[in-house]
Amino acid sequence: MATVSDITVSAAINSLSALLFLVAFAILRLQPINDRVYFPKWYLKGIRENPSTSGPLVKHFVNLDLRMYLRFLNWVPAALRMPEPELIDHAGLDSAVYIRIYLLGLKIFVPVALLAFGVLLPVNYTGGNFQTMSASMKDLTYGEIDKFSISNVPPASKRLAAHILMAYVFTFWTCYVLYKEYKHVTDMRLHFLASQSRRPDQFTVLVRNVPSDPDESVSEHVDHFFRVNHPDQYFLHKVVHNANKLAKMVEQKKDLQNRLIYYTNKHERKPTKRPTTKTGFWALWGQKIDAIDYYTAEIEKLSKEELAERERVIDDPKSVLPAAFVSFRSRWGAAVCAQTQQTRNPTRWLTDWAPEPRDIYWNNLAIPFVELNLRKLIMAVALFGLTFCFMIPIAIVQTLANIESIGKVLPFLKPLINTRSVKSFIQGFLPGIVLKIFLLILPMILMEMSKIEGYVAFSALEARSAGKYHLFLLVNVFFGSIVTGTALQQLKEFLKQSASKIPETVGVSIPMKATFFITYIMVDGWAGVAAEILRVGPLVIYHLKNVFLVKTEKDRDEAMDPGSLLWPITEPRLQLYFLLGLVYSTVTPILLPFIIVFFAFAYLVFRHQVINVYHQKYESAASYWPGVHRRILIGLMISQITLLGLLSTKEATNSTPFLVALPILTLWFHRFCKNRFESAFRKFPLQDAMIKDTLERATEPQFDLKAYLKDAYIHPVFKGGETELMDVDDEDDDDHFNLVPTKRNSRRGSQPGTQEGSPEDHRTGIYVV
Amino acid sequence: MATVSDITVSAAINSLSALLFLVAFAILRLQPINDRVYFPKWYLKGIRENPSTSGPLVKHFVNLDLRMYLRFLNWVPAALRMPEPELIDHAGLDSAVYIRIYLLGLKIFVPVALLAFGVLLPVNYTGGNFQTMSASMKDLTYGEIDKFSISNVPPASKRLAAHILMAYVFTFWTCYVLYKEYKHVTDMRLHFLASQSRRPDQFTVLVRNVPSDPDESVSEHVDHFFRVNHPDQYFLHKVVHNANKLAKMVEQKKDLQNRLIYYTNKHERKPTKRPTTKTGFWALWGQKIDAIDYYTAEIEKLSKEELAERERVIDDPKSVLPAAFVSFRSRWGAAVCAQTQQTRNPTRWLTDWAPEPRDIYWNNLAIPFVELNLRKLIMAVALFGLTFCFMIPIAIVQTLANIESIGKVLPFLKPLINTRSVKSFIQGFLPGIVLKIFLLILPMILMEMSKIEGYVAFSALEARSAGKYHLFLLVNVFFGSIVTGTALQQLKEFLKQSASKIPETVGVSIPMKATFFITYIMVDGWAGVAAEILRVGPLVIYHLKNVFLVKTEKDRDEAMDPGSLLWPITEPRLQLYFLLGLVYSTVTPILLPFIIVFFAFAYLVFRHQVINVYHQKYESAASYWPGVHRRILIGLMISQITLLGLLSTKEATNSTPFLVALPILTLWFHRFCKNRFESAFRKFPLQDAMIKDTLERATEPQFDLKAYLKDAYIHPVFKGGETELMDVDDEDDDDHFNLVPTKRNSRRGSQPGTQEGSPEDHRTGIYVV
Repeated sequence: MATVSDITVSAAINSLSALLFLVAFAILRLQPINDRVYFPKWYLKGIRENPSTSGPLVKHFVNLDLRMYLRFLNWVPAALRMPEPELIDHAGLDSAVYIRIYLLGLKIFVPVALLAFGVLLPVNYTGGNFQTMSASMKDLTYGEIDKFSISNVPPASKRLAAHILMAYVFTFWTCYVLYKEYKHVTDMRLHFLASQSRRPDQFTVLVRNVPSDPDESVSEHVDHFFRVNHPDQYFLHKVVHNANKLAKMVEQKKDLQNRLIYYTNKHERKPTKRPTTKTGFWALWGQKIDAIDYYTAEIEKLSKEELAERERVIDDPKSVLPAAFVSFRSRWGAAVCAQTQQTRNPTRWLTDWAPEPRDIYWNNLAIPFVELNLRKLIMAVALFGLTFCFMIPIAIVQTLANIESIGKVLPFLKPLINTRSVKSFIQGFLPGIVLKIFLLILPMILMEMSKIEGYVAFSALEARSAGKYHLFLLVNVFFGSIVTGTALQQLKEFLKQSASKIPETVGVSIPMKATFFITYIMVDGWAGVAAEILRVGPLVIYHLKNVFLVKTEKDRDEAMDPGSLLWPITEPRLQLYFLLGLVYSTVTPILLPFIIVFFAFAYLVFRHQVINVYHQKYESAASYWPGVHRRILIGLMISQITLLGLLSTKEATNSTPFLVALPILTLWFHRFCKNRFESAFRKFPLQDAMIKDTLERATEPQFDLKAYLKDAYIHPVFKGGETELMDVDDEDDDDHFNLVPTKRNSRRGSQPGTQEGSPEDHRTGIYVV
Repeated sequence: MATVSDITVSAAINSLSALLFLVAFAILRLQPINDRVYFPKWYLKGIRENPSTSGPLVKHFVNLDLRMYLRFLNWVPAALRMPEPELIDHAGLDSAVYIRIYLLGLKIFVPVALLAFGVLLPVNYTGGNFQTMSASMKDLTYGEIDKFSISNVPPASKRLAAHILMAYVFTFWTCYVLYKEYKHVTDMRLHFLASQSRRPDQFTVLVRNVPSDPDESVSEHVDHFFRVNHPDQYFLHKVVHNANKLAKMVEQKKDLQNRLIYYTNKHERKPTKRPTTKTGFWALWGQKIDAIDYYTAEIEKLSKEELAERERVIDDPKSVLPAAFVSFRSRWGAAVCAQTQQTRNPTRWLTDWAPEPRDIYWNNLAIPFVELNLRKLIMAVALFGLTFCFMIPIAIVQTLANIESIGKVLPFLKPLINTRSVKSFIQGFLPGIVLKIFLLILPMILMEMSKIEGYVAFSALEARSAGKYHLFLLVNVFFGSIVTGTALQQLKEFLKQSASKIPETVGVSIPMKATFFITYIMVDGWAGVAAEILRVGPLVIYHLKNVFLVKTEKDRDEAMDPGSLLWPITEPRLQLYFLLGLVYSTVTPILLPFIIVFFAFAYLVFRHQVINVYHQKYESAASYWPGVHRRILIGLMISQITLLGLLSTKEATNSTPFLVALPILTLWFHRFCKNRFESAFRKFPLQDAMIKDTLERATEPQFDLKAYLKDAYIHPVFKGGETELMDVDDEDDDDHFNLVPTKRNSRRGSQPGTQEGSPEDHRTGIYVV
């Protein structure tokens, strides 16, 4: 058990490392050469230009104005200055609401901490359990921290009533704040949707599982069906082609072109020597050949294949999927179609809101509908296995990756391996590294699992991944830290125990793990957030790209990687802090200030990042909020059940009925909020649709909706007109969003790769942690 | 443990009693005097008239044709003769589908029994566990029945593989049959809905929680809202008045009128003596007065009050509830409105299909919407308490109802009580009677609980009651019989045990309880079903009413109580047989023939009753089927988990993974069916609505929809025009269903009380078991 001074030292070290990150950030961000790494958002918006080119050359790279270094923390007030409505306008609602989660943490935990310090700390400290115990046990097993925790209250003490009362107060406060926040977010979302300008997805419904008809093509069938069943509202439709293979080719060509540019640059710098490459795998072996000629020929070959495939996709009726984007004359018509069942068979003519065009994950549109149930079943089993048995494959990999097997596969490394120091390094670190790598790629695995489940929108995929990740962290980080041993062993242990013993086992361990979690909050929370603002990865990659690939201003724009919020990763991690705060609020309130510092610091950093860095791939208008709300409530219920378990070991059995009521009330609160708010995140009310329709008809009676909607939902590989065969950057459908050509828009048009990315880009882009 | 001969004797006794009931039925039903008890349905349909009045008087009452007694079982082929389409036409889809549940039992269990007898019986019988055990234990604790059960297979035997294999085969077979049945019922429902003639609920949506508007009345507000948001489809609306008090008065007046008729009849028979009554409670004490004068005066007084209340309800804007029935020009418009969300706030302007007029439970329309969540929460807690602690209040009542307290409250009974035989009777039987009474009124209690939850349709109320009753029977009859002791004690015991021990505890007891359940099936199932066909209750009540109340032919029609299926009671009970069959199919297959006999016999009896007796209060087009399906699957999963528990005590731990997969697969099958079929029971597809609209517009272009819909949704107390103040039988809205006046219809008009009943009638009518 750690003493107070241990914690102080740890806090000092972690604060120092966080401070170091901040100082590094403060210095690096002032250098003009890094401007595009730390302020990419402003470049994307077309507001910020390259630093002025007057003055000495060195000024292009290094900032010599010493006064600016003195004010190295001035990003903090700058991050706080932008008001929320402007932030929504600047970064979108998704980002603005995401930041509010940190604020929500502060709103919940600051009053809770004040109350806990005012009431529970004195009650615990004067509990005197350790005074009596330490006399005999020589004060060895318990640390000073525990004097402030519930452990210091003797069993069956009347003082425990204070904890039960506080559990009620904290629950009601948390629910109250959550309710207010849900209401506020709902209002923000509805206001945002109402004030949004015209978007194709407002008029469009995605129809899936169109039944096949022997006499008609899919297109005709869709047309007839909606002409009959939505006679006044149906407008036009767009069938979906299976262009997955074509998209892969386009991707491949882009990669080849990047290599060509790399070698061309190399040649330009050293015109005397033609660059060479090898034909084998990853250019590691094989015949040596001229790189520029080779890639030019390869690109040409691929272009021809792509052209053929493109024609095949368009002409072949078999490439038409049984799905279509159906657009309506009004938002009202689309809202009606999206919310109703079309035919008797609920698995056919399935209608749902079309995701916005950028949000569509085209690959999954090709999945036959009958498979979806089976896929979900398999993935549910896989998730269970992954969560509870994740140590097993890791252990196997670790066994395989030991010295002997490396020696066998790569015999030439044998002499090196047999060196004593290298050997011990591998044996000592490799298992740890394998685990670390697994944890790093875990979100990617979960994303792939969600993709297998068949969701057709990135927003849905991310929401599912976040849910899976949250489960994994809950089981393996929270419960895994409390009850040591692998999750599978725990499960076995738990099942052998009595059902009512599970909360007890967890509850008893909780006060003992307080110091561990305090350290965890400082390492993972404080230092982790400080690392986020430094952006080491993008910084290195940007400079590498700048050296090897960038030739034109456009290339430089592309090399810039603004990244995005990655909320499917950060949000479940952040939920852990809510959980810890709620669990320890009644048990060891001394942990709360660390949580509060985390939330405050993270709020500052993420607000800064959202304003200056991140660029979201799509806008879902905070559709993830019901998930956030639910996960906080899960944390609240876990805290209540563990407190119940803890108190039952304190021989306070009379308190059980009071505490059992809490999770039931929380569950009821969850259902209440679901009924009250969730539909605002799933459906589009007819009244709002009608208001927007009426307004628009009055203000723009001449608007050509047909031209507007015609090409909104085309697979990205078919976009771009004549340049489609040569220009790989044509996966841009952003133009269809903003009809009035502004400066901003024309800029955006010139850097589409960074803006949208192809689906593949998006996937990898999201999961580089 | 019972021997085979014990079971044989029990079977003989129960078969005999069932046969006696059948013979009594066969004789009684042939008497003309009972014709209206055993064939009320034909009278209601106007097909059957009173027996011809020619011939001697005795023929009116007793059937003297001896040949007919010889064919006393000829109701059996008669019950089977009517083909299903005709049955649907004759008795409605609800009844036709209900009978199919028994057929479903046969479809599942006949092949299961054949397979179990072919494979498992030989495996069990040659298992030889008892041969080895009986040598030492002298064959005392196990009966012969157990030789055929899994108990005869020694632990860790390879023979257990047969049971696991059979568990899979039975699961797949059950799921296959359930799938086919769900599909068939869905098709029947959709076909039934499609072929239904015009009904007001097809065009109408119930809007609840209309927000209050300071400037407009509810009626104006509804009108403006739908005029704006459903401009092309909105037709008319009808606000709802809070007429609960008025309905109670009407009810009261009806009761007084019945008494008046009773005394008038009495007076007519004995004109010399004026009948008298007492003014006190239940006419038990108080001043003696002239009965006819008294009731005439009372009725007059009440009529005046009723008139005042009627005017108040109509004129007072406060009596208008924030709810309305909104009708649309087409089924398409109503389908759209019912399935979509109207405004941002999902708790306002709530739209849902209007129940058919007969199905509405008007009282609950007055419940403020905000209360509903709270009511549901309270009722959930109450249900939990009722299910697990139901023995506690019973025990208290039993303690209160003992000799001493009776003596204190009613001192004049003291001498009687102190008689030895009476005392022992009371002490021996009263506790049992209290329990029996509680079990009889339990469905009524559950129905009241569902009413408190605030559902506005009888069909919904009954579905909820059925779910509650099923839970109660599951816990208290099935688990309660297996693990003896009260449910609360079991729960305590279970919570103290290990979570994984619960299936074990239950699993081990299961083979030992086989003989108990075989007896249960015979007593409750065989004899119970035979008693159903005899209709002792209605028989007695009809003849009593005939003597005391009936004056005219119309009165006789009213005295006839056809009853209805009471499926919220019979269906959960019947689920117990599915559960027993599934649980014992792998454990003690010898139980299966008893189940099969039950299903076959019940099928015959209920088919006969549906054809000749029952008259359903409303038609929900088999909307209860998803519940039936779900409950059978719950039974299947219980059978799988108990088998898992049983086998884990047989030291067949290797089998666990195989058996764990079964409930997961079953759960997945449930979700699959839910996705595939359930929406047909909840929503009305737009395509079908459009087809019906188009057809109708083509065939009846001149139809006056306005006149048709105008008065369809009026509270029953406001129906009946001029006679509304004097005629209590005017709660008939059936006229609005059939526009072409047929003979059948005109007859129906003359016996509305029996047809619909007021809401109160309906409630009590349903729960007289």
